[in-house]
Amino acid sequence: MDRTLISQTVNKIGEKVHLRGWVSAVRDHGKITFIELRDRTSTIQCVGVDLPKVTPQSVVYIDGLVKKRPEKLVNANIATGHVEIEIQNFTIVSKAQELPFDMGKEELNLDLPTMLDHRSLSLRHPKVRAIFEVQEVVIDSFREFMKQNDFFEFQAPAITPATAEGGAEVFQVDYFDKKAYLTQSPQLYKQIVMTAFERVFSVNKVFRAEPSVTTRHLTEIVSLDAEMGFIDSWEDVKNMADKTIKYVLDQVSTKCSAQLALFGVEIPSYIENTPTLSLREAQDKIFEKTKRDVRGEKDLNPEDERDLCMIIKKETGSDLVFVYGYPTRKKPFYVYPDPNEPEFNQGVDLLCRGVEWLSGGRRINDYDQLMEHVKIWGINPDDVTLFLDAFKYAAPPEGGFAFGAERITKQILGLENIREAAMFPRDMERIDVRLGKK
Amino acid sequence: MDRTLISQTVNKIGEKVHLRGWVSAVRDHGKITFIELRDRTSTIQCVGVDLPKVTPQSVVYIDGLVKKRPEKLVNANIATGHVEIEIQNFTIVSKAQELPFDMGKEELNLDLPTMLDHRSLSLRHPKVRAIFEVQEVVIDSFREFMKQNDFFEFQAPAITPATAEGGAEVFQVDYFDKKAYLTQSPQLYKQIVMTAFERVFSVNKVFRAEPSVTTRHLTEIVSLDAEMGFIDSWEDVKNMADKTIKYVLDQVSTKCSAQLALFGVEIPSYIENTPTLSLREAQDKIFEKTKRDVRGEKDLNPEDERDLCMIIKKETGSDLVFVYGYPTRKKPFYVYPDPNEPEFNQGVDLLCRGVEWLSGGRRINDYDQLMEHVKIWGINPDDVTLFLDAFKYAAPPEGGFAFGAERITKQILGLENIREAAMFPRDMERIDVRLGKK
Repeated sequence: MDRTLISQTVNKIGEKVHLRGWVSAVRDHGKITFIELRDRTSTIQCVGVDLPKVTPQSVVYIDGLVKKRPEKLVNANIATGHVEIEIQNFTIVSKAQELPFDMGKEELNLDLPTMLDHRSLSLRHPKVRAIFEVQEVVIDSFREFMKQNDFFEFQAPAITPATAEGGAEVFQVDYFDKKAYLTQSPQLYKQIVMTAFERVFSVNKVFRAEPSVTTRHLTEIVSLDAEMGFIDSWEDVKNMADKTIKYVLDQVSTKCSAQLALFGVEIPSYIENTPTLSLREAQDKIFEKTKRDVRGEKDLNPEDERDLCMIIKKETGSDLVFVYGYPTRKKPFYVYPDPNEPEFNQGVDLLCRGVEWLSGGRRINDYDQLMEHVKIWGINPDDVTLFLDAFKYAAPPEGGFAFGAERITKQILGLENIREAAMFPRDMERIDVRLGKK
Repeated sequence: MDRTLISQTVNKIGEKVHLRGWVSAVRDHGKITFIELRDRTSTIQCVGVDLPKVTPQSVVYIDGLVKKRPEKLVNANIATGHVEIEIQNFTIVSKAQELPFDMGKEELNLDLPTMLDHRSLSLRHPKVRAIFEVQEVVIDSFREFMKQNDFFEFQAPAITPATAEGGAEVFQVDYFDKKAYLTQSPQLYKQIVMTAFERVFSVNKVFRAEPSVTTRHLTEIVSLDAEMGFIDSWEDVKNMADKTIKYVLDQVSTKCSAQLALFGVEIPSYIENTPTLSLREAQDKIFEKTKRDVRGEKDLNPEDERDLCMIIKKETGSDLVFVYGYPTRKKPFYVYPDPNEPEFNQGVDLLCRGVEWLSGGRRINDYDQLMEHVKIWGINPDDVTLFLDAFKYAAPPEGGFAFGAERITKQILGLENIREAAMFPRDMERIDVRLGKK
């Protein structure tokens, strides 16, 4: 008999079906056993008499009859809640050993280290799976929007020869008898590839050897990167970033309503014209509303970001706010200085709910200006030959942006720790297993 | 005036347009200059009188009139071949320095090292871009087919703690005060994630520290990986792999006809039931047809693969052929032994035009059997705790497959060297720049 997927049972009332899945919960009532069965599509309640004893998470095959549940036993919270399976034949295909914790509850209620020590098991919990279902939609919708707008996807390299951008926070690789490094950003590559394809994006791993274990740090991150040529100004970049994030939020809102409900969160609100302030305007506004004086500081600190987002939310209803015009020397060498005020640049950050979500801006496309910055920033031109060549042979006015899949996922779902938003998080103390234990 | 993309000019005959792009070729005929302009959509011929001197690859903005070309001057080979632009206003936005080689020819005719030394430039050549346009379709169509079949995309990690699969050919990373490694395959992770999502796939980088510089080796590869639970036999895996590859070929055939024409190649042919032979049947057939006796060998060597593909092509018309049933001990510990003949396993390779394209098979899902193999293969269970846990807590009969984006691209386009199929190829001697030079 062919397998029926659990989601299809709702159209098969009165029919005999063959189901396959994991036992996500068992309730034994003497002769009668209730089994919650999970497959890739859904879960369903199955009821059997005199079943052999089965442990939670075991894999079972069930032949049974799809029955309509009595009205008062309907479970409106799940798609299959108005049906159940009367078990006729029950086979344990793979028996799970005793679990280290109860997987049958709505909340796992484990501390993060325990959750990660048992990743292969915790990943099966609906609320943990929901995180990565949201993340898949975030990444897919980024890709969709890019393609709708003629961006070409390329595969950015992970191993790099030099460390033009980074300093201490880069991982070193033994590369035969030489040294190589793990990429911290596809920045220079996407600018190169832009000169061949005009609009490009990549979904790729970046690595940060940050020697700190906080709720915000991972050593391996999924970066969503875009770069576009032939802009008229930095605002073209800002507008593309704005539309991208709004598209991502719309898609998550539409496709992940069940997952958002599990976490009891609402998708961030936005308005048509996302509020956009220069760094100095932002600092003025913070002073005006909170009397906290950060005017003249070279960047927003986390408290400033939180305050600014609250003020803007109150004034406009928007959870999103752009801040541009940071001091030029605080940013990488390729960022475009404002021609009218070269000490400030045309880089831009997108903040949401008190945290930076996305970073981007216009880049220098003139070869001579770029070489001047290379000199001032103290970069060895030999370390970035390929990059400089892209501009030596002419590049249009251009810019781009990037955001991290894990951070957006964490922020959308209101997770406490970014590690929850990585399936196999890597940090200073853990690569799958705790490093101290080795 | 708003920018018009070059592909849109064909619908604007008689209209004034503003174009932006790179000069891909210049021909100076005294007062009259012919410029081939390239943007992300297409190329077009532009004609101007008394233009300022412009170097190839420079970025220019052109205001001009879209004119129908006289019948005898129509170029049927390009989409914009029946129109041209009469230049009214010409602005050089970014001037390219003198090029190291002629980019205006149909063929670049460079040796590979020179092509890669100047990657930022060579990447702009139509025939080089075509390679990555095909690769993008290969990867996209893999993803599309997976999603159509309920596979969940996850992000496999790049940094790994142990080297369960590999030996010498693994890259070591300085991970704070510990050692870590770059992943050689997402194999163990996809099996873990399969127990949570049932059907999973990933598009991710894998790394091989192969100390050889051949036409077949890269140190960094894009791996396309799939894994599926609840199979009835290894043939379910083979059939999914078969349909995946056929879908990819169909999509490349449909979407990349121009690119295939540039390379003068035809997409591999397939038939409904892809020929499928056991290793021993394949060896018998090679002996029967060529009198070369490789019967009893533990694997097919490159000559065997070429001979088998030629024989099958002649007999059936199929460029694709599956070979299964390799000696168990020649394969990794997780591969499923044939219950009737445990010395042979249920791993399967897909060959095409003389080369292995894809590898996969059924895996062991029973925890006790897996632990037995771990012991026999001499693997330290502590190195694969997370993996073993996935089976300790029950896994269904399952299998999967993987193939490399670069190899498939190389094979489809008939490229001589796999480095041509990587945008920024890494090998023993090169990471962007030649390593000897440093």
